[in-house]
Amino acid sequence: MQSSKRKGLLLIISGPSGVGKGALCQALMQRNSNIKMSVSCTTRAPRVGEVDGINYFFKSPEEFQQMIEQGAFLEYIHVFGVDYYGTPRTCVEQQRAAGHDIILEIDVQGAMQAKQSCPDAVTIFIAPPSMSTLKTRLIGRGTETQQAIERRFEAAFEELQYMRKYDYIVTNDVLDKAVVQTEQIIAAESLRASRQMDLIESFQGGFSTL
Amino acid sequence: MQSSKRKGLLLIISGPSGVGKGALCQALMQRNSNIKMSVSCTTRAPRVGEVDGINYFFKSPEEFQQMIEQGAFLEYIHVFGVDYYGTPRTCVEQQRAAGHDIILEIDVQGAMQAKQSCPDAVTIFIAPPSMSTLKTRLIGRGTETQQAIERRFEAAFEELQYMRKYDYIVTNDVLDKAVVQTEQIIAAESLRASRQMDLIESFQGGFSTL
Repeated sequence: MQSSKRKGLLLIISGPSGVGKGALCQALMQRNSNIKMSVSCTTRAPRVGEVDGINYFFKSPEEFQQMIEQGAFLEYIHVFGVDYYGTPRTCVEQQRAAGHDIILEIDVQGAMQAKQSCPDAVTIFIAPPSMSTLKTRLIGRGTETQQAIERRFEAAFEELQYMRKYDYIVTNDVLDKAVVQTEQIIAAESLRASRQMDLIESFQGGFSTL
Repeated sequence: MQSSKRKGLLLIISGPSGVGKGALCQALMQRNSNIKMSVSCTTRAPRVGEVDGINYFFKSPEEFQQMIEQGAFLEYIHVFGVDYYGTPRTCVEQQRAAGHDIILEIDVQGAMQAKQSCPDAVTIFIAPPSMSTLKTRLIGRGTETQQAIERRFEAAFEELQYMRKYDYIVTNDVLDKAVVQTEQIIAAESLRASRQMDLIESFQGGFSTL
């Protein structure tokens, strides 16, 4: 009875540094060919090996500014007052129309901005099992100074204050479990009445003809 | 980090006659020991084999009236102006506090009333794959007259007009699939930020002590 193709979801995923967002998103994509990462626009120069349209859409500052004025971004940010990064609305909508679920992995500020631009987005906060686990994970990376770790830890604490503003919280204790829980959220959100308007309308034509 | 026991969900399940709500609820309970059906209060006399507190809570009309006045029901109905049926709020809340997910299988009117009394309830509408499938199923029962089938079919059509007011719509084409989808809704709803306030609060104590 669902005549038209299911519209994909926009999944906005946030969580503090060290919580394992990247691994979670990778696992989701590996297990579900239908799930894709959103590709951002940026004004920064391509690095070696980066491909336009795959890693980023590379834009000149003028192009980016014009897109801002046209309201072409679900969210954007001016990082350190130098480079712009933004999520192009049309690109996300085209992929959703084709039935793909699109992941936007983004910080809490960007997430709030994107949710406002796209109210039917699903926001998911990835939480650590505890603050002490998070600290252990940050130290465990072994790539940063004590001071850098402290700074990340403070930033993580600030980010955690936003978790109540998200639709869902998934605790990443064991990765496989967090992946399954995120898949359950995706499955359930696809069953929302508000996302099945075609089905609802198909039952409203009157029944005398049946 | 989740110190206290998870509070169970109240699942309000509706759908037209013949859609397979009963089979779905039975399968859910068989597969999940945590899921229980809500037990209603009624003023009608017990039938042979019915046990007070298991099939129904049997009440005198006076007792039932008093409970109405006390606001003790999530919803109630006066069937054919003779018998009263109602869902006792305290009983549902006690079971939820013990961690059980409680199913309230009820018609659309009762569902709307119960959702208003209990805004954190999850409403699920079970839809047939199509109106013609539903008709086939109603006829297939072979227990009713043509006239009774037509009446049920008209009532089903009326009920279907309410599906947009539900949180979720599960199409019961293949029972096993509908059961899994309902389980995914239950899993996802348990991950809602609004249902994880203990977790949220556990991250707000300040981080200096860690």
